[in-house]
Amino acid sequence: MTAALSVAAVSRWHHECDVLVVGFGGAGACAAIEAARAGARTLVVERASGGGGTTALSTGVCYMGGGTRVQRACGFDDTVDDMVAYVRMAAGSGCDEERIRMFCEGSLEHFDWLCERGVDFNDAYEPEKTTHPFGEECLHFSGNEAAYPFSDKARPVPRGHKPRRAGEAGAYLMQVLNRAAEDAVAEVLYDCRARRLVLDDNGRVVGLVAGHEGDEIAVRADRAVLLCAGGFIMNDALLAKHAPLLLECNYKAGSPGDDGSGILIGQGGGADAINMSEGLVLNAYYPPGSHAKGILVDANGHRFINEDAYIGRASEAMLRSAGGRAWLIVDNELWGKTQVPHRLAGVEETFADLERALGMPQGELVHTIDVYNRHAASGVDPLFHKASEYLRPLQTPPYAALDCTTSGSIYGALTLGGLATNARAEVLDRDGRVIAGLFAAGRNAAGLCRQGSTYASGLSIADATFFGRVAGRVAATGNW
Amino acid sequence: MTAALSVAAVSRWHHECDVLVVGFGGAGACAAIEAARAGARTLVVERASGGGGTTALSTGVCYMGGGTRVQRACGFDDTVDDMVAYVRMAAGSGCDEERIRMFCEGSLEHFDWLCERGVDFNDAYEPEKTTHPFGEECLHFSGNEAAYPFSDKARPVPRGHKPRRAGEAGAYLMQVLNRAAEDAVAEVLYDCRARRLVLDDNGRVVGLVAGHEGDEIAVRADRAVLLCAGGFIMNDALLAKHAPLLLECNYKAGSPGDDGSGILIGQGGGADAINMSEGLVLNAYYPPGSHAKGILVDANGHRFINEDAYIGRASEAMLRSAGGRAWLIVDNELWGKTQVPHRLAGVEETFADLERALGMPQGELVHTIDVYNRHAASGVDPLFHKASEYLRPLQTPPYAALDCTTSGSIYGALTLGGLATNARAEVLDRDGRVIAGLFAAGRNAAGLCRQGSTYASGLSIADATFFGRVAGRVAATGNW
Repeated sequence: MTAALSVAAVSRWHHECDVLVVGFGGAGACAAIEAARAGARTLVVERASGGGGTTALSTGVCYMGGGTRVQRACGFDDTVDDMVAYVRMAAGSGCDEERIRMFCEGSLEHFDWLCERGVDFNDAYEPEKTTHPFGEECLHFSGNEAAYPFSDKARPVPRGHKPRRAGEAGAYLMQVLNRAAEDAVAEVLYDCRARRLVLDDNGRVVGLVAGHEGDEIAVRADRAVLLCAGGFIMNDALLAKHAPLLLECNYKAGSPGDDGSGILIGQGGGADAINMSEGLVLNAYYPPGSHAKGILVDANGHRFINEDAYIGRASEAMLRSAGGRAWLIVDNELWGKTQVPHRLAGVEETFADLERALGMPQGELVHTIDVYNRHAASGVDPLFHKASEYLRPLQTPPYAALDCTTSGSIYGALTLGGLATNARAEVLDRDGRVIAGLFAAGRNAAGLCRQGSTYASGLSIADATFFGRVAGRVAATGNW
Repeated sequence: MTAALSVAAVSRWHHECDVLVVGFGGAGACAAIEAARAGARTLVVERASGGGGTTALSTGVCYMGGGTRVQRACGFDDTVDDMVAYVRMAAGSGCDEERIRMFCEGSLEHFDWLCERGVDFNDAYEPEKTTHPFGEECLHFSGNEAAYPFSDKARPVPRGHKPRRAGEAGAYLMQVLNRAAEDAVAEVLYDCRARRLVLDDNGRVVGLVAGHEGDEIAVRADRAVLLCAGGFIMNDALLAKHAPLLLECNYKAGSPGDDGSGILIGQGGGADAINMSEGLVLNAYYPPGSHAKGILVDANGHRFINEDAYIGRASEAMLRSAGGRAWLIVDNELWGKTQVPHRLAGVEETFADLERALGMPQGELVHTIDVYNRHAASGVDPLFHKASEYLRPLQTPPYAALDCTTSGSIYGALTLGGLATNARAEVLDRDGRVIAGLFAAGRNAAGLCRQGSTYASGLSIADATFFGRVAGRVAATGNW
């Protein structure tokens, strides 16, 4: 942690504002817009030379529902209750009901709010299984909605909303939000690195000390400091301490700012950090969606999960159940190029040859395929309950094994632990009491998404932007 | 956390000592003995009406090696280096090399020290696979030493040492240690519940406030307070926050004192709590050792681990890989009564009937058995690498399935997270700095054993007693 400074030690305030936002990514931009719109003098500090944060490096998918304009235009019914039922599972263990309800009940309005800021969403649906559409289509199934066991427990509805840009849309999303924020706030200080909170004698947060262009500056915040400075995937020491499994992943899905400094600064102000062992792991074996019709096997040639699960759920199983030794088996019809390239570990005319090439115990992959094919021909998967639309016998040689091992493929990871907050985005101490004057949102907080194995694409951005707004408005007005 | 009190707020010290030990279990008793022997005026406070703590409820097995008298008498060579190589794996991710070396280099002396206190160990070896011998035999393989993949990486040597008592020996062990401590220390206050630390203006720990027989008392500790008050398996709220997987276990392996209060009190003094998500999970499908010759299968009838693994490792796989739905399959020759009873989920004359009775997909258990038996007949297990001495075809009907599901059997659990300490048992704050005057040992600390999936029986008691001693001596003299 980074100890807070006593206000008595501050000799001069270089800047003064009502609401100080630390970090200008998805959470910080939305927080700043709401605070400024509510009339607060709002200042943003950002350590990089421009805004965007990790959201700008992402697909830009935002998880929204309850009957958005796009959902309706594409012919999907959705309700708040259906969304609550699914998000409760997707948020994972430890997320509170109040936060889940607030998020789902506010989702329609959040969609409209993003549109009003200028974010463009296309009224088009992408039916192929994907983490995000490659084209300009907006709506898609971005999580486990249609996959076992989730599909049994909540009516499947697509809620992934990608802004109207081909490919990755995060940079576009953040251009719009950063510009809207810059127009609304008093000032944005770039190249300004937050260092520590300033507390008054009652433990209330009243400002921040930061490094700015070589100088140390103190910023007074009359109402609140909002920590929106990202997670800690870039900090190996913190990962080793809290989430060692993520160190097995060779691609850090974050920006340089995700070094945990926002969490450490909050802890220095008395905040609790929770859920620190959880993260999202991503080995993108699809798209192409046809790959969900293949099978994932471990080093014994055995399946271990329904392959139509969201890649975060499947990838965590690849790490935990398969011990980081997994392969995707496809036939010639299913094979396609993955966006994050996968090496071919073997291509053979028979499964017997393929299991030999992969060094698997003799007969095991062959048995796995026999059983899978026999059931798939009947449209069922009694072992792992893959949905029937992804069931088809693997019977068109040659057969290929895509290398999904930790040593041979790309495992992305991001952290899901951070400062403890309530549903108003107020930061809590280790006894669960609100720390006056301190808020957190985005991956700086342990927010809506608590568990990698249940996560859906777009949940983190939705959490960051929605609860960033909550932080901004509550900080400025006391109410959401 | 439980906020510390400023020394200025203490109007009267009801007791004064050099070293105050909180908790009179394995860690506290050994800490008290060492502190008193080093000349410190030593006081113990214990919330129960007698000593023993969780160690008294245990098997009493202590993990020791390097060539103890018992190891030599039973014909086993052991060296510090062999022990280091194994303990490094058994301690698990996050344990520091200094602590591992200190523990292993001190292990021979620790054995002798326990003997000198009056703990009796029998120079006899129990060859059957067990978590602890039922008879008075002392030495046994108590962990994964002889199991894959550990056996490939360190020379297997038995290091579980059970005191000379039939059945569970923890109560006997603690009778001896508690009596030795009572003889050595100035005073033991029973029915005395620690509430909060007392800090001076520099943040140094100088005492403790406790509840004692209806009154609140303050105890001055001129040198140090030693927190040896156990883990948090009895605190569901803390489990939900830090280690939700342990809530799936239906038996809490602890005493009422394991409510996390020692950890919360330490945090209130500025301490960091680490490794809080880790725990040990125990479904005791052996002894009898013959059960390691059976196979564990999931709801698909598939194996998922080498069954000769230590039950902690296997049980965590039952939870994580098998999703809490696991069965042990044995034939009529292997079946025996487990100490913690297991319900028979099915008994049939054929494996086809058994898989039907268990509701498994048709043909899967049959295939698993076919493959297992074929290889076992040759003394190999190419799939999960069980050691050859546990490989034998399952071919003597009837065949039985022992219910090892979370809903149908006993899953014990204890926590492995606690206060951050260095190898001198000094407690650290969140920046890794020593908190003056504060030590912790046993499950109150995140000590030597960090990971349930690598744990060995006796590691926790060895950690508690050894680093309890370290805490006592360093607190009293400044040196180990």
